[in-house]
Amino acid sequence: MTLTELGAERSGEGPLSTVQSALQSHLDGRWADVRATARTLSERELFRPAFGLSTAEQRARTLEQLQVLCAEGLTGLGFPVRHGGQGDIGASITAFDMLAMGDLSLLVKVGVQFGLFGGAVLHLGTERHHAKYLADIAAGRLLGCFAMTEHGHGSDVASLRTTATYDPATDEIVVSTPEDSARKEYIGNAAQDGRLAVVFAQLVTDGHRHGVHAVLVPIRDEGGRPMPGVRIADCGPKAGLNGVDNGQLWFDEVRVPRENLLNRYADVAPDGSYRTEIENSTKRFFTMLGTLIQGRISVAGGAASATKVALSIATRYAEQRTQFEAPGRTGEVVVLDYLAHQRKLLPLIAKSYALHFAQAALVETLHEVFTDGTADDPRQRELEARAAGVKAAATWHATKAIQVAREACGGAGYLSENRLPDLKADTDVFTTFEGDNTVLLQLVAKELLTSYRDHFGELDVLGTVRFVANQAVGTVLERTAARKLIQRLIDKAGRDDEAEWTDRGWHVSLFDYHERHLLQGLARRLRKAAGAADPFMVFNACQDHLLATAQAHVDRIVLEAFVAGIDSCPDPAAKALLERVCDLYVLSTVEADRAWYLEHGRLTAARTTQLAGVVNELCAKLRPDALTLVAGFGIPSPMIDVPMLRG
Amino acid sequence: MTLTELGAERSGEGPLSTVQSALQSHLDGRWADVRATARTLSERELFRPAFGLSTAEQRARTLEQLQVLCAEGLTGLGFPVRHGGQGDIGASITAFDMLAMGDLSLLVKVGVQFGLFGGAVLHLGTERHHAKYLADIAAGRLLGCFAMTEHGHGSDVASLRTTATYDPATDEIVVSTPEDSARKEYIGNAAQDGRLAVVFAQLVTDGHRHGVHAVLVPIRDEGGRPMPGVRIADCGPKAGLNGVDNGQLWFDEVRVPRENLLNRYADVAPDGSYRTEIENSTKRFFTMLGTLIQGRISVAGGAASATKVALSIATRYAEQRTQFEAPGRTGEVVVLDYLAHQRKLLPLIAKSYALHFAQAALVETLHEVFTDGTADDPRQRELEARAAGVKAAATWHATKAIQVAREACGGAGYLSENRLPDLKADTDVFTTFEGDNTVLLQLVAKELLTSYRDHFGELDVLGTVRFVANQAVGTVLERTAARKLIQRLIDKAGRDDEAEWTDRGWHVSLFDYHERHLLQGLARRLRKAAGAADPFMVFNACQDHLLATAQAHVDRIVLEAFVAGIDSCPDPAAKALLERVCDLYVLSTVEADRAWYLEHGRLTAARTTQLAGVVNELCAKLRPDALTLVAGFGIPSPMIDVPMLRG
Repeated sequence: MTLTELGAERSGEGPLSTVQSALQSHLDGRWADVRATARTLSERELFRPAFGLSTAEQRARTLEQLQVLCAEGLTGLGFPVRHGGQGDIGASITAFDMLAMGDLSLLVKVGVQFGLFGGAVLHLGTERHHAKYLADIAAGRLLGCFAMTEHGHGSDVASLRTTATYDPATDEIVVSTPEDSARKEYIGNAAQDGRLAVVFAQLVTDGHRHGVHAVLVPIRDEGGRPMPGVRIADCGPKAGLNGVDNGQLWFDEVRVPRENLLNRYADVAPDGSYRTEIENSTKRFFTMLGTLIQGRISVAGGAASATKVALSIATRYAEQRTQFEAPGRTGEVVVLDYLAHQRKLLPLIAKSYALHFAQAALVETLHEVFTDGTADDPRQRELEARAAGVKAAATWHATKAIQVAREACGGAGYLSENRLPDLKADTDVFTTFEGDNTVLLQLVAKELLTSYRDHFGELDVLGTVRFVANQAVGTVLERTAARKLIQRLIDKAGRDDEAEWTDRGWHVSLFDYHERHLLQGLARRLRKAAGAADPFMVFNACQDHLLATAQAHVDRIVLEAFVAGIDSCPDPAAKALLERVCDLYVLSTVEADRAWYLEHGRLTAARTTQLAGVVNELCAKLRPDALTLVAGFGIPSPMIDVPMLRG
Repeated sequence: MTLTELGAERSGEGPLSTVQSALQSHLDGRWADVRATARTLSERELFRPAFGLSTAEQRARTLEQLQVLCAEGLTGLGFPVRHGGQGDIGASITAFDMLAMGDLSLLVKVGVQFGLFGGAVLHLGTERHHAKYLADIAAGRLLGCFAMTEHGHGSDVASLRTTATYDPATDEIVVSTPEDSARKEYIGNAAQDGRLAVVFAQLVTDGHRHGVHAVLVPIRDEGGRPMPGVRIADCGPKAGLNGVDNGQLWFDEVRVPRENLLNRYADVAPDGSYRTEIENSTKRFFTMLGTLIQGRISVAGGAASATKVALSIATRYAEQRTQFEAPGRTGEVVVLDYLAHQRKLLPLIAKSYALHFAQAALVETLHEVFTDGTADDPRQRELEARAAGVKAAATWHATKAIQVAREACGGAGYLSENRLPDLKADTDVFTTFEGDNTVLLQLVAKELLTSYRDHFGELDVLGTVRFVANQAVGTVLERTAARKLIQRLIDKAGRDDEAEWTDRGWHVSLFDYHERHLLQGLARRLRKAAGAADPFMVFNACQDHLLATAQAHVDRIVLEAFVAGIDSCPDPAAKALLERVCDLYVLSTVEADRAWYLEHGRLTAARTTQLAGVVNELCAKLRPDALTLVAGFGIPSPMIDVPMLRG
């Protein structure tokens, strides 16, 4: 196809806009009404992207935005109806997704206030806490903190040092920071706006430690002054998200009533006796953390949305920016007509589509588990691992894609007015907060190794090794909701050396094989570690294998979600387009991993050497639809109305 | 080796510090005295890294820093002695390298003032310009702009639209911005401090266009007000480098004396007749641009230095940060003891060493060519391609490595006080300024295809295709200065299937094969394009192949420079350590490219499947020396004195 033909094909607005709206409607999904409301809201001046503000101005603006959201009743959607919410957790996360297309400081402030702080009160507290606080939290009258991370302990939450000691003499809990490295660190809402904190601390009663529990501690009075015994410092300027007031907290024997213990899973009686429904302390700990899973899913969605905005801006720019003349043509070449530029942007757009469907599936499952399920719902553990994996994938994708988008826009991409700098700086921390990605992928791998049985704690090396040692080799791979569809595709997959490049069954079977083979090899290696003198060393030596296994797992569940998402698309033209996007997602992923497939005899060199050309062709095929694809993301137009696209 | 043994090995300060200083001394190289001076200067409060300043504060601070550098006589080192310089271009670039360890706004302001603006006056001007301006430029009394890029034309400089029309009636040149997209864009020193601009424009005399030439145009008067006909706007906030006042310039029939034409390569007589020593206009254009090669080499060095700072900070943090307990050990594990963390940081440190030697070799060559050479020195074209390639490699390395360093430090890495956010944001534009990396790699590939013969312009597709079509297949690979040493190594290289993993000759022959094979394949594909109906389409279809070829070329010259750098290291212990670092650089590069080697039958799967384990072992081997290696970079201690390392 010549450039002129490409141009002609993409210039037709009529058919394209139909596909666009079909795409957007399919991506909008179950909570389309929430998305529509958010789009309306984004028209207001207050919610338009701003830049170049001082930290004080940013904080004031973010707070004002948050209060407007509250006034509009758009916050706490996941809270129970009787406490000011709508009892709709899926709607809540969808609203979060949409916020992420605008100012990311607001996103994080909302996440801290309603997801982490509010979520902890809701999920870890009981009726007495709900009645007392939830309505005020949902309305933004009571801002608060989620004080988990300590300076010395981030990922290793079980080792937190802050203590919460019950004193039966006064019926109070005494919260203390025993050493400077136990100060609460990076706490959102702490430096300026928060009045109440959910403090995670080692609970001590009667001289016994019961592990990490959450206690409500007032940190500021009505006038905004720190409460007695509470010391607060500001974390200072950050790479981004400067509208969020992150701070540090120290507690010097701060006394709160016993009732401030968030006691859904464990409680302390007035005499100091401790009781819990979950006897196993490790299980109790993870049950408590598990209810906060919403945070990881929200971050994954937020990262995915910010990425869509960046890719949309870069793609629109690439459609209008020209560079160099080509022989035999009049005028200069539009940069998206260059293969190298297509290669930069189109596979990232394809991956954004793939992750969109994976995220949508996660949100559906979360919504079901939290709406109908119980705390020890068997689906919960699987959901946790999946949320961890998709969070890692979506946030690393954001880091990479926003970087590429910035570079694809050259100097214009470096100007704050064109949004890419803030998208980059604001999302940068997503890969390490709400769980460091590397740690999360290890969690995924361990869940796979043990088939989601809760035999051990999150990072207990010996437990994992021993468990794996006693297991049969054929590890069971759990299937996504699309189980039957996927199996049908696999059953009719072509043979490796002759399958069509676009044979979806063959794609799925490749990803499946990749995961299965890595997992089995990993289990074999770890089994050897059971008898080793230093199991940590053996375990450590497998760490790259472990991470690769988790990555392969995530690739598979993302693909399966994509396949199911295409299957359910009602519009034939949109569906056909999505099939091509899926081809590009799969084949660019296989291209990147082709060394592994070659080494394991799954693909021949004769076949892999064709991959580059096949991916190039797919890019050329999708290139006329580039604008349609980014329009399908359904980004509110004020969010991509940047000066470089107005020229 | 157990962790305890590792710990014991790295705790010994005595022998390590000797190696450290030997490493630093070897890396300091020929212009060690300049580095020593810069280290002393960095002790001053004014030069310590700052953060959280407003744009106005940053600009004021950067300007003050620049004036102090001038007062100390540390600027314009590359200018002729008779005009206030030291006639030492190598010293000039080395000083730039050192500046890049501190505030990068200062680096870029210095680069604009002395490298681009001063460099253009020096290299494109003649004695009349030198006598009038250079001393004032070197002393910082006259700040100026390098006004090349236009809003509509960045990489494609030949297509600039600004005009400089000679008017014989008044003996003046009339400079005009014919349309808004021809405004000068992103111009450093324009928004606030610059008084004189080197404006690149299409020269017109007697109704004839002569291509792009440079003209000196005053843009502000002594009081700082824009000159008549000059319109100036501020580019506004950027992702980083906000200490540099980037702006936009429009010229409305601005008249300057004919003598303001920088007339080293071409001149206009009072009657309007045009004369030049370089008749071929394309050649003339590239000769003019070529003299500005120093900018690319400086950016490569700056990127390399900033990367070293980031890796140094992250490595030191990884040596003190603990996370999780391990079975059978007391205390928590230092994060650098985790394989995944070693895998993140150590190959990047190895690549920084490799790039250091490549950069040092470039600076040496540049110094020689510019000190002894002539404008059409045959080495110049090769130097240009090499500078373009190393600039692309060093700046992409910076983007990746600083990102990884930030993530490796978790939340602490996101705080501005720990420097990583500014290092990231400030260097981000390096990949697209002073030549977009993708465009630069195409330049490299074309130079390789034509063996540095100047048969065609920078991005003239038809010219390249036709030239290649008439050439013999066996393209000549030029060799670095280490030609003999490299050939000796290749001659005694082991066979692919049995060579030791650390066989340097085998390493070099692999890289050599990679480049040669890609280049020959590319030549074959392009040859077909000569007869095609639409050569652009054929050329475009090869763009990924073209970029891969350039990348393989850069890998080879970087490795050869590393090998030569090790060979010349006088200290046996430092040399032995560098050998291991080089092994890691090579094998982690081969690991990443192993699919290609497999597909081309150069490595077997039996061999490549071992690579991951081999790289892991190399990481474990180097891990005790991690601190030594980053200390070897010779970074002034105030530049890495960040709060998270003080705990």
